[in-house]
Amino acid sequence: MTTDPTARHYDREFVRTFFTSPTAVEGGDDSAKMLRSAARLRGMEAPDVWVPDNEDATAPSMREQGVENVVEVVSEHGADFPGEIHPRVVWHRDDPATRYAGFRQMLAMADPDGGAVDHLDGFVIPEVGDIDDWKKADEALTRVETEHGLDPGSLSMSVIIESGEAELAMGDIREEAGKPSNNLERLFLLVDGEVDYTKDMRGMTPTGELPPWPELRHNTSRGASAAGLIAVDGPFDDIRDVAGYRERMTENRAKGMTGIWSLTPGQVVEANTEPLPPASGYWLLDDGEGEGELRAEDERWVYDGDALGLEETGDGYVLRVDGREQELNADDLREELLRRAAYVPSMADMVDSMAEFEAAKEAGKGAIAMTRAATVEIDGVPVDIEADRMWDEATYQAAKTPIDLFQDVYEHRPDQHDALADRYGREVVERATELG
Amino acid sequence: MTTDPTARHYDREFVRTFFTSPTAVEGGDDSAKMLRSAARLRGMEAPDVWVPDNEDATAPSMREQGVENVVEVVSEHGADFPGEIHPRVVWHRDDPATRYAGFRQMLAMADPDGGAVDHLDGFVIPEVGDIDDWKKADEALTRVETEHGLDPGSLSMSVIIESGEAELAMGDIREEAGKPSNNLERLFLLVDGEVDYTKDMRGMTPTGELPPWPELRHNTSRGASAAGLIAVDGPFDDIRDVAGYRERMTENRAKGMTGIWSLTPGQVVEANTEPLPPASGYWLLDDGEGEGELRAEDERWVYDGDALGLEETGDGYVLRVDGREQELNADDLREELLRRAAYVPSMADMVDSMAEFEAAKEAGKGAIAMTRAATVEIDGVPVDIEADRMWDEATYQAAKTPIDLFQDVYEHRPDQHDALADRYGREVVERATELG
Amino acid sequence: MTTDPTARHYDREFVRTFFTSPTAVEGGDDSAKMLRSAARLRGMEAPDVWVPDNEDATAPSMREQGVENVVEVVSEHGADFPGEIHPRVVWHRDDPATRYAGFRQMLAMADPDGGAVDHLDGFVIPEVGDIDDWKKADEALTRVETEHGLDPGSLSMSVIIESGEAELAMGDIREEAGKPSNNLERLFLLVDGEVDYTKDMRGMTPTGELPPWPELRHNTSRGASAAGLIAVDGPFDDIRDVAGYRERMTENRAKGMTGIWSLTPGQVVEANTEPLPPASGYWLLDDGEGEGELRAEDERWVYDGDALGLEETGDGYVLRVDGREQELNADDLREELLRRAAYVPSMADMVDSMAEFEAAKEAGKGAIAMTRAATVEIDGVPVDIEADRMWDEATYQAAKTPIDLFQDVYEHRPDQHDALADRYGREVVERATELG
Repeated sequence: MTTDPTARHYDREFVRTFFTSPTAVEGGDDSAKMLRSAARLRGMEAPDVWVPDNEDATAPSMREQGVENVVEVVSEHGADFPGEIHPRVVWHRDDPATRYAGFRQMLAMADPDGGAVDHLDGFVIPEVGDIDDWKKADEALTRVETEHGLDPGSLSMSVIIESGEAELAMGDIREEAGKPSNNLERLFLLVDGEVDYTKDMRGMTPTGELPPWPELRHNTSRGASAAGLIAVDGPFDDIRDVAGYRERMTENRAKGMTGIWSLTPGQVVEANTEPLPPASGYWLLDDGEGEGELRAEDERWVYDGDALGLEETGDGYVLRVDGREQELNADDLREELLRRAAYVPSMADMVDSMAEFEAAKEAGKGAIAMTRAATVEIDGVPVDIEADRMWDEATYQAAKTPIDLFQDVYEHRPDQHDALADRYGREVVERATELG
Repeated sequence: MTTDPTARHYDREFVRTFFTSPTAVEGGDDSAKMLRSAARLRGMEAPDVWVPDNEDATAPSMREQGVENVVEVVSEHGADFPGEIHPRVVWHRDDPATRYAGFRQMLAMADPDGGAVDHLDGFVIPEVGDIDDWKKADEALTRVETEHGLDPGSLSMSVIIESGEAELAMGDIREEAGKPSNNLERLFLLVDGEVDYTKDMRGMTPTGELPPWPELRHNTSRGASAAGLIAVDGPFDDIRDVAGYRERMTENRAKGMTGIWSLTPGQVVEANTEPLPPASGYWLLDDGEGEGELRAEDERWVYDGDALGLEETGDGYVLRVDGREQELNADDLREELLRRAAYVPSMADMVDSMAEFEAAKEAGKGAIAMTRAATVEIDGVPVDIEADRMWDEATYQAAKTPIDLFQDVYEHRPDQHDALADRYGREVVERATELG
Repeated sequence: MTTDPTARHYDREFVRTFFTSPTAVEGGDDSAKMLRSAARLRGMEAPDVWVPDNEDATAPSMREQGVENVVEVVSEHGADFPGEIHPRVVWHRDDPATRYAGFRQMLAMADPDGGAVDHLDGFVIPEVGDIDDWKKADEALTRVETEHGLDPGSLSMSVIIESGEAELAMGDIREEAGKPSNNLERLFLLVDGEVDYTKDMRGMTPTGELPPWPELRHNTSRGASAAGLIAVDGPFDDIRDVAGYRERMTENRAKGMTGIWSLTPGQVVEANTEPLPPASGYWLLDDGEGEGELRAEDERWVYDGDALGLEETGDGYVLRVDGREQELNADDLREELLRRAAYVPSMADMVDSMAEFEAAKEAGKGAIAMTRAATVEIDGVPVDIEADRMWDEATYQAAKTPIDLFQDVYEHRPDQHDALADRYGREVVERATELG
């Protein structure tokens, strides 16, 4: 029997949130304060992966204390923490001393005498280089496991991609992870670290904002897909810009990257919630200046912008787009609006569609048409539109991803069951968990 | 002598259209109905590559019948079909049983007793994984050839890229295809399959639409270029959205991907036609809200939008862009409009330019200026503009691609000669075929 | 001791400009005229890398003369030229005869008897293919060095990426350059050549303009980063379109690609200047139609467009965006404008910020907030905004790139000191050179 490298070796199929906490802060009487408050997070405020951060978030002078704090807080609170726990230690592809320091941090945190290791799922290794550097980190973990009598491969390894060579290495994982001379099967998350990546690539923008790096995110997502791992985007610095954070996550999901770094419990709530389907469906309309949400009112979907205009004439319609008018009959108008409109399905809609397709399949049908109708209103003129979409097995499989995500969350995060029920209603939650 | 891996091993240099037909449909008295009607397509409705699809387009329960139908219809109509014929069989990187089923389908379709193999150019293998999986498919084809006494490598192999590992594998073809232990030189098309790719990458969009995956398309095009193969984009589901299909093809061509999947004869006509140069040239103007086509009227090119405004004053002009006005003299106005304008050359324009450059080269000149003049009219104010472009050998070579495409079509698709003559006129067609 | 492949092997950390000159032009009495005038360029008009171009810029019939001209002009003027000198010779991955011709051109130019080699920093090899082809070029250089008794590796090698296989090869440099059987450590620049790349990829656009190839530029920048090399973008043909050239450079820098080809001394000035921080800072505002620069007037930053409108009411504000109005109180308005505004720091601003952070670090602080305040005026209504940004070590490192660039320029280009002092003032220049 061969092992399948794309089969995930971890319980979680998805990770929505990667939340870092400083391991030790100066001043005040408890340097572990931030760790302690993070360890008590529950429900939507608790991340899927919690990262006590003994690297960049913690001052170099505090990192020795940080190791002790991790041991203390994780051994005390780890059993009750609802997400996985993966401390970040120091590491650098270009500096053997830093690598050795990282090894010693891991060795100390995973010492069974401290009591934390039972609740540690793995470690996060920053600043990795090419695949040979990943192997060094893997070997450091193997030595930690051996030294402490842990099962080989029981500690996972997640890496932060913050250099060109690490980006290239993501193309090699699939080939390298199967070799008998390493334990790279322990890999779990591929996390982009855009601040240091920007430095390494020497990227510059006029305002100092981070470049968008779309290709990096694609390559991370692809590397994860090809090796059965999970892709996570880096930190979004402007924590007040919730709309921007959401936009970034929407973009990421279109790249297959479901997870994102969260810097605050507020960002954790956003990032835990956003990838899940909405509670209510709604229509979008492209008015020539971009896609905007229509407003629901009395069974109609109303357009409030002024880029589109519509007027009924005796024998048809005049549609105005960006100052240009076109005369249309009823059918052409419907066609035109259909082209501009799109529906964002709710969780209940998705469950209905999947169930309908599953029933059709059982009845021997390979493809069915799904219909979605609405009345759209522009300048007070109502127009009925109806969108058909053919569903076959492939459509069904691709549409299943949000449901897979939901089921993964539901299975692994009982602490979020109440929030999910509040959001969707118990009946929809129940049906969603039973699909597939 | 070494073989050059970027030298194409096939007759066709370009494939515009990849048209799939279900091999067997339930209900009705002839399960091969769809195959039969596809086999009779001619001219612009007939694809460059026809794919009797014994995978996703055909219900699993009908695939055995599908194999028989392919043999029957291809043996009867294959000789007269104007394009190449490449059936798709089942295959999956993660499932040996499916791979064996695919092998048996190919073995049956290629059986000389059935009479179809003389008209089969190759097979399409879906759901391939990493390069070692491609080698398994290649080996299956080698066994089919051996079993039936066919020349080694006589059946081509095209693959559908629908996983991260297959995307990565496209970086390895050039290196692997020359090895003595495989026959990967049989590779022909690299076809993106975005529906299953989206599933594999776990991509999600709010409306359920497919993500655009620009990096995948780049990598497919690059993989094809580096290994002398041909890149083809996946299906465009919304068959009523002709404008959207055209936009996608324009985008693809800018990535070097000339071919696209077609789901209906209507899409085949579009996809056979669009990559060819237009019959008449026209001017585009960027009015700040995007590039739009100008309307030809009495030797002038008229702007009908309202984002740009122009007024003649006593001693110059006032140009209004997005509500901001700027005073310009005649020269600056011309410069500004030139910057915003671009000409889309017709086939005749291209033929003229190439011929002009070829003559100049023969006369010993390495570079010449090509001039294009027009009168643009905004708000009733006419402005004469004149664009120069330097042509050297590299410009010439890059500009030749549409002509290469035309010549490839003309050579291999005599059934489209009439349509081409209708589109361009016999004289332009003749000059275009004689260039280079 | 191991060597670090990302450690740059060259003096220059950055190359802003790559300027080509024909080596020999027909007609007139001095075929070396263009070389001679280029060799006399100084200050902002002189490129970081000057490329006497014995390939595409020079007619094939003139290339023998071109070799002689390079020897003559470089031996005479090379000692005084302020940038590096890297002639381009002929080469082609698919043509051994061209490769041999390229070898002989290099052999002749580097002949110590000619006196040019003391001023030659290396050679530029166009049209390379996969990494094995790069090794052939490297070996040609090794033979030249051996033949002329030059130190091994003393001549650098820069390559033009103009094929899919060369793009793929950039993923292999790091692994291959360390092998004892080659001298690929001599690699210096990775230069995109989009005209020939477009031909090789068979890219097409309606107007014949070059496609933007964003993925190629990313991969070039990443390849350079992973192997300690420098990435340079290809030629920008429309030499009158200064705004377009600047936009392209801004895009490139966001990809980590600082350098660009320059076709004229005017483009050299632009490309030498643009990557450096501006002399004065300014604010940008996103008005829904894109980001635009605000106009400074009496300590205020005035918005002149009409996409945004602002009115003060008795108890708050009405903000109009794209025809939609929203009522906001003072705090929400500030928040909204802050979200839309961004500051482009001047060199002096950057120096201040870096110095402030360095001082804070010395005082034991790991992170500090940088504040930037301004009064923005829309429709005559002034609004005070204040942006905070947290700086930590990673922010500092990423923000340092423009200063690193400045220091690299300052160190290697004394001929530009006056221009830099004119631009920034002597005091800012002095402080910038002393940072870090």
